[in-house]
Amino acid sequence: MNDTLENQSQDTLEAHLAQVQTLLGRMRLVEELVHKQGGPRQDLVENLVHKQNLSELRRKLEQLHPADIAYILEALPLDERRLVWDLVGAENDGEILLEVSDSVRESLISTMDKAELLAAAESLDTDEIADIAADLPQDVIQELLTTLDVQKRARLQSALSYPEDSVGALMDFEMVTIRADVTIEVALRYLRRLGELPDQLDKLFVVDEDALIGVLPLKRLLTTDPEASVAAVMVEDFVRFHPEDEAHEASQAFERYDLVMAPVVDARGRLIGRLTVDAVVDYIRESADADMLSMAGLKEEEDLFSTVWNAAKNRWMWLAINLATAFIASRVIGAFEGSIEKLAALAALMPIIAGIGGNSGNQTITLIIRGLALGHITPANARRLVVKELGVATLNGVVWGSVVGVFAWLLYDNPALGGVMALAMLLNLLVAALAGIFIPMTLERVKRDPAIGSSVLLTFVTDSMGFFIFLGLATLLLL
Amino acid sequence: MNDTLENQSQDTLEAHLAQVQTLLGRMRLVEELVHKQGGPRQDLVENLVHKQNLSELRRKLEQLHPADIAYILEALPLDERRLVWDLVGAENDGEILLEVSDSVRESLISTMDKAELLAAAESLDTDEIADIAADLPQDVIQELLTTLDVQKRARLQSALSYPEDSVGALMDFEMVTIRADVTIEVALRYLRRLGELPDQLDKLFVVDEDALIGVLPLKRLLTTDPEASVAAVMVEDFVRFHPEDEAHEASQAFERYDLVMAPVVDARGRLIGRLTVDAVVDYIRESADADMLSMAGLKEEEDLFSTVWNAAKNRWMWLAINLATAFIASRVIGAFEGSIEKLAALAALMPIIAGIGGNSGNQTITLIIRGLALGHITPANARRLVVKELGVATLNGVVWGSVVGVFAWLLYDNPALGGVMALAMLLNLLVAALAGIFIPMTLERVKRDPAIGSSVLLTFVTDSMGFFIFLGLATLLLL
Repeated sequence: MNDTLENQSQDTLEAHLAQVQTLLGRMRLVEELVHKQGGPRQDLVENLVHKQNLSELRRKLEQLHPADIAYILEALPLDERRLVWDLVGAENDGEILLEVSDSVRESLISTMDKAELLAAAESLDTDEIADIAADLPQDVIQELLTTLDVQKRARLQSALSYPEDSVGALMDFEMVTIRADVTIEVALRYLRRLGELPDQLDKLFVVDEDALIGVLPLKRLLTTDPEASVAAVMVEDFVRFHPEDEAHEASQAFERYDLVMAPVVDARGRLIGRLTVDAVVDYIRESADADMLSMAGLKEEEDLFSTVWNAAKNRWMWLAINLATAFIASRVIGAFEGSIEKLAALAALMPIIAGIGGNSGNQTITLIIRGLALGHITPANARRLVVKELGVATLNGVVWGSVVGVFAWLLYDNPALGGVMALAMLLNLLVAALAGIFIPMTLERVKRDPAIGSSVLLTFVTDSMGFFIFLGLATLLLL
Repeated sequence: MNDTLENQSQDTLEAHLAQVQTLLGRMRLVEELVHKQGGPRQDLVENLVHKQNLSELRRKLEQLHPADIAYILEALPLDERRLVWDLVGAENDGEILLEVSDSVRESLISTMDKAELLAAAESLDTDEIADIAADLPQDVIQELLTTLDVQKRARLQSALSYPEDSVGALMDFEMVTIRADVTIEVALRYLRRLGELPDQLDKLFVVDEDALIGVLPLKRLLTTDPEASVAAVMVEDFVRFHPEDEAHEASQAFERYDLVMAPVVDARGRLIGRLTVDAVVDYIRESADADMLSMAGLKEEEDLFSTVWNAAKNRWMWLAINLATAFIASRVIGAFEGSIEKLAALAALMPIIAGIGGNSGNQTITLIIRGLALGHITPANARRLVVKELGVATLNGVVWGSVVGVFAWLLYDNPALGGVMALAMLLNLLVAALAGIFIPMTLERVKRDPAIGSSVLLTFVTDSMGFFIFLGLATLLLL
């Protein structure tokens, strides 16, 4: 597939999108015109210009690669997305459903009936069906299972049985196996007889019965004396994965060892599938996206053009949690209302202490989350990290504490207030550094993803403690 | 390289790291003991246990893949990192420098003299030298240029001339070219004569003089009748890149079309290099990391164990900017100090309005930044996005506004205060939605990376406007 494409830089992709959008815009104009003339919907369907636009759009879509249609669908609002989706040839439905994001896939699947879904799914490989299975209605999956042959059904069921972030969920079954006792010559003839090889294949798997005993890289196959035996040429030391391995760790191994594909074997060393770099690339991109979204307080990936209701649902959980923490921080301030009545300047200055504490803590927490994800943080070096971060916080506290202290002093002509500001800033930066280290490390310790929720917890700590430290010190020392 | 590895899952990697850390811990104990006995440093060097530990560590390192040593170096504090780095065999220096992150590379290079750096660089390919050139002293680069042959020097200079995020900076020069007028049989024999093929090679480039006229995927080469001519079998429609293309867009093409490698050609269609999926995977990971770090307000990637001073420098710019915006927000509050003196409850409630505005705006801005990066947002659909986000903000404003309104009413037994809370929340969420859309879109319009600084600007808007709206409404309606 990848070898038969025109040069598709994103520029031309954007041009394709712009053309589709222009056609859709024209169609909207015609529709409005027909509507203004008070005609029934029938008039639109029979309108000649409308028909021409539709067929031009269909022709345009026929020229595009499924991945490019997927891109265009992502960029269209729901009504136009549905119109374009209806025009796409059914033979591409499966491929496109694979390529779009989860949220857009849901919006497409919701417009399809059972027969269409079955047809789309049947055009896919079993590992690909497994990838979209979570979004398919249960009855479609059941029916699919009955139509597949025994081997494919077993593969689909096994692929569905692995957790989402495991190697088993990413692997596919397109591999070429050979025996060790044949010659390279025979292997070459065998490949020629196969006629077609899977994409992303850079090695053959050498098996003895079911057991994987070696791999034969194509580059060795191509450069070795044809008389040699596979056994003499194959590589016996190679990277392999188990289906239960974490996808995260497999992706790091692909990155580290520059792999294109690797075999997946069961506990007894029997070959059960392969993991390819294209699946790994998709995984890396998706998990980077998911981290970014969850750090921003979105429950899951959101369709850019989802309905208001779906978008709101996606955002409520974290807004509610934030609101709860903001209420608590508000009550901390409430405890010092007497002090604020006496010195209203405290109200104006306190957000500075809380805010910079939050910013500084976020810098620390981000480094720690990344260090945990890369496996760089261990019990043996955690103490050094704490020392370093407390050092940075102390340096920052002295520098920025002095700045805000002088600011408060000059602004309110009150040196004692400046001193309290400076001290509160230093203390809150130390709190922020400790929270920035221990929140993600604790989440990791209890097997939770440190990227999710760390930031909210941190802001809660730096806000509440920032208000408490500043207002508390002011009450003790100034009033 | 990738085919001659033992099974290196991260578990065993972590085990390697733990073993190195244990050895280093033992060495520290010996050192402390010698030190306590008051002996000079000489005693340590001659201590038998110390010597044994050193040689055990060296033996351990010799067994490891350069990428794994790189991983271990990343996880070690500076003093231990330097000790391990000195023990690594010089033949692996270049490879390891390539694998570590920029910040750790700096810490390693700073311990090496010119001769060591030259030796390390000379063990690398020209495109690899270009990757680490930014961290090499100028005189080392100059000397390198004089030692390279003409072709390599030209390649290094051209690789150095492309901007960091371009295809030219990621490409390498390891390709195999053939002529179109030979047969598959001849091509196969030619490969066998080459004896070794580059990693990540999944196609040969078919050239006529210098011009790239087609590609011959290895899978076609392996499955086609040997009598056929290359011209008859080659693919003429294929993805190609130009060295000036943005790496970001090339990486999306790799993802979309599942590429393993692709040719890079100049404006006149002449072959000048290739882009491989391992370079693309590294690029995707690094730019996702860079986005995450810059969104958290870190100027650049930071060595987990950098010195306090270097870490502080890396964080000051954004802390200073945050401080400046916090000062301005503080002055907004300062303008209402009279109101706060009369009703101190305002001080306790105002952070809720500002905070939830910031959270909600961050949800919007993250979706927009992602949509811009994926090319999903265009002039034609921007209006729909604004309508949707304002819809979500209105819904959230009514729901959460009511919640905070009732909270304020009950807490302060003041229904009017509750009403002002609810209205201020609604208005600030609308402000947050607009800021969340227009800040990144404006940065994109003026060709700035929307991921950098958007969040700081947004918080500035939601804080200042949140305080202004709430305190302003309260002053108008309550006092």
